[in-house]
Amino acid sequence: MSKDSIETLIVDIAQRARAASLELATLETRKKNAFLEQLAETLVANTDAIIAANAKDLAAAEENGLPEPMIERLSFTPERIEKMAEGVRQVASLPDPVGEEIERMQPPRGFDLRKLRVPMGVIGIIYESRPNVTVDCAILCLKSGNASILRGGKEAFYSNMKLAELIQTTLTASGINADAVQVVPTTDRAALNVLLKQEDTIHCIIPRGGEGLIRFTVENSRIPVIKHYTGVCSVYVDADSDPELAKSIVINSKTQRPSVCNAAENLLIHQDAAAQLPGLAKALHDAGVELRVDHAAKALLTGTGLPLIDATKEDFATEYTDLIISIGVVPDAQAAIDLINANGSGHTDTIVTQEAATARAFLNGVDSAAVFHNASTRFSDGFEFGLGAEIGISTDRLHARGPMGLNELCTYKYVLHGTGELKD
Amino acid sequence: MSKDSIETLIVDIAQRARAASLELATLETRKKNAFLEQLAETLVANTDAIIAANAKDLAAAEENGLPEPMIERLSFTPERIEKMAEGVRQVASLPDPVGEEIERMQPPRGFDLRKLRVPMGVIGIIYESRPNVTVDCAILCLKSGNASILRGGKEAFYSNMKLAELIQTTLTASGINADAVQVVPTTDRAALNVLLKQEDTIHCIIPRGGEGLIRFTVENSRIPVIKHYTGVCSVYVDADSDPELAKSIVINSKTQRPSVCNAAENLLIHQDAAAQLPGLAKALHDAGVELRVDHAAKALLTGTGLPLIDATKEDFATEYTDLIISIGVVPDAQAAIDLINANGSGHTDTIVTQEAATARAFLNGVDSAAVFHNASTRFSDGFEFGLGAEIGISTDRLHARGPMGLNELCTYKYVLHGTGELKD
Repeated sequence: MSKDSIETLIVDIAQRARAASLELATLETRKKNAFLEQLAETLVANTDAIIAANAKDLAAAEENGLPEPMIERLSFTPERIEKMAEGVRQVASLPDPVGEEIERMQPPRGFDLRKLRVPMGVIGIIYESRPNVTVDCAILCLKSGNASILRGGKEAFYSNMKLAELIQTTLTASGINADAVQVVPTTDRAALNVLLKQEDTIHCIIPRGGEGLIRFTVENSRIPVIKHYTGVCSVYVDADSDPELAKSIVINSKTQRPSVCNAAENLLIHQDAAAQLPGLAKALHDAGVELRVDHAAKALLTGTGLPLIDATKEDFATEYTDLIISIGVVPDAQAAIDLINANGSGHTDTIVTQEAATARAFLNGVDSAAVFHNASTRFSDGFEFGLGAEIGISTDRLHARGPMGLNELCTYKYVLHGTGELKD
Repeated sequence: MSKDSIETLIVDIAQRARAASLELATLETRKKNAFLEQLAETLVANTDAIIAANAKDLAAAEENGLPEPMIERLSFTPERIEKMAEGVRQVASLPDPVGEEIERMQPPRGFDLRKLRVPMGVIGIIYESRPNVTVDCAILCLKSGNASILRGGKEAFYSNMKLAELIQTTLTASGINADAVQVVPTTDRAALNVLLKQEDTIHCIIPRGGEGLIRFTVENSRIPVIKHYTGVCSVYVDADSDPELAKSIVINSKTQRPSVCNAAENLLIHQDAAAQLPGLAKALHDAGVELRVDHAAKALLTGTGLPLIDATKEDFATEYTDLIISIGVVPDAQAAIDLINANGSGHTDTIVTQEAATARAFLNGVDSAAVFHNASTRFSDGFEFGLGAEIGISTDRLHARGPMGLNELCTYKYVLHGTGELKD
């Protein structure tokens, strides 16, 4: 496509999304839920067609020599389509966030002023890889009254276009403007660049993906961005900690699902809990975890015969998303707090301690979206937090921090019912 | 200054602000308030010194031929300094937003999870003209536990530097890290550009000022921006409206203080209320307001002898900040809603009607930060909303929409108190 035709295409998508968003903002809950129920049925009924489109992506992936785990994540099966449909039904069952009274204000003059939850408007979501994200994002945006513009990765292009077609057909059949959900029909970066400049019609950009994609988005967007970045999460084992509790939390945080953002990457241990370290390290090693250790940790573990790698400074700021852990020894809790604030990504950090005052200092002092006491970092998740569903986990501070559910896809408006009030 | 030394200066300011912000985040309310009380005294005690610094700005302003209203806004008097100090005492008396429990979560597994209000971290404020903004912003950021980096305009440079010195001396005397409030000691745009790239140490940018400054900020910032843009506010007079009520609300919205963002710029009137228009137009004219009319309004007003100017399409999207109003006739309430959504700035809009269903349609359908029924647009203000104070009025949708008080300068964190919870 030429530069001009890409520009025309994207501007048109954005303007149609904006028009649809104004209709969606006042759409009855009943109609949104009827659409979602219908979509779940449509997806299952079109299993063969989805798998046929997906086969084109898989063929391209093999031709391009994509690694096996990526191909695995890319592929649809009847079971995965059924699971995706189940997710759609679940969102239908969640309460509608739109119109909820967030706060009854107390203005000094006593007039009736309320803060109500309303949709943002148009949300652009930039993502890579797994095509089920297309459906997940479309339904969360729609339920929260937002129009969405979805720009997926080239690996899932045919799958995404097929899903978009099914979503739009179902929107039309449900009496909803089909422009409410649009998939950008090109993965050209030039199109993405134009999209990021439509600040008059698009209100929020959520990038989910690799560091390169997120940096590109932040550097080129004039639209506010909510980043879903890396999770460099730490477990701090305090002097006053129960060894069995510490071991179970460290192992669970690191190994229960190492590929996700709320898995732990660092273990920090108080020097007075040094006696626990060999047991912890052995348990990690037995679970298949590679140990990267600082000087002090190395000294404490040298006699154990465990394979040790010297940790670099960067290791403590790295998201491995793999069975690797960095281990450091700290003189006190404050040193752990400082290390986490300096090296972490502000995602999720946990302290294991029996001492309430130390826990309080850690929970107050660690500047992260989620701070836990005696619990696995793996609980940092929209479902576990009771949000019902999540569009991702924000590593930003503005608007939404941590898991983002339906409420976090909304903004608010102030509504005043007056009786002729005048400013004097 | 050379490009390198500007870079070094700004990076250093940002890093020191970040370090100070981690201390501020857990600072006791008592210490913050003691500082504020002390600052109020210091400002008054240094009236002569402030006026001497201000005199340098005023001399430069006259030399550069600044218009009289700008010089007026720039100048300090003992009364204005007393008023500024009074504002500082008032912020001391407001509740501390930090640590407040926003929500007790209801996670499905029942563990103890709370959403607590915490400071954002480091806030950069970019502003022009009036030097009292330096103190207003510094104290609101400090009370909400944030470090601030203030970049004022060149017109108020000497006044701003003097105020910065007084603030920092008082911070040190109060046992608070003086890096908590820093004024950028240069108004070079190159310095601003470097500031906008410090996304690792600065968490939020709030630009307050002219369109050029705000566009520059949005286009160059990698840090999330909360814009304080124009207010293109409308009053819609419905068919079923009380003529006296309509007149009082239109006059108050337009003329009570035409230079501010919550003053009305447009009057839209239902064709069935056409009989009200001559009286409304006469009242506006008598209050000194220039009338810019669309075709239909012109036809209705031609016999009145009032001076009329043809309104262009752009007039209905223009913030006059002056005694000028655009007047349009609409066939129904939905047309008014559509016009406001297309031309307004999403700031504040009001409907005058006796009909509850029409009011509801307007309040739901108008996509603005504040929507009023039978009240003047002039109430869209942090004090009138009961926020205690405001740092400005956001025209953005993410994070904060409408008046921003202390709560809106904060983010939140999730705090979980566990008993060894593991993910299965």
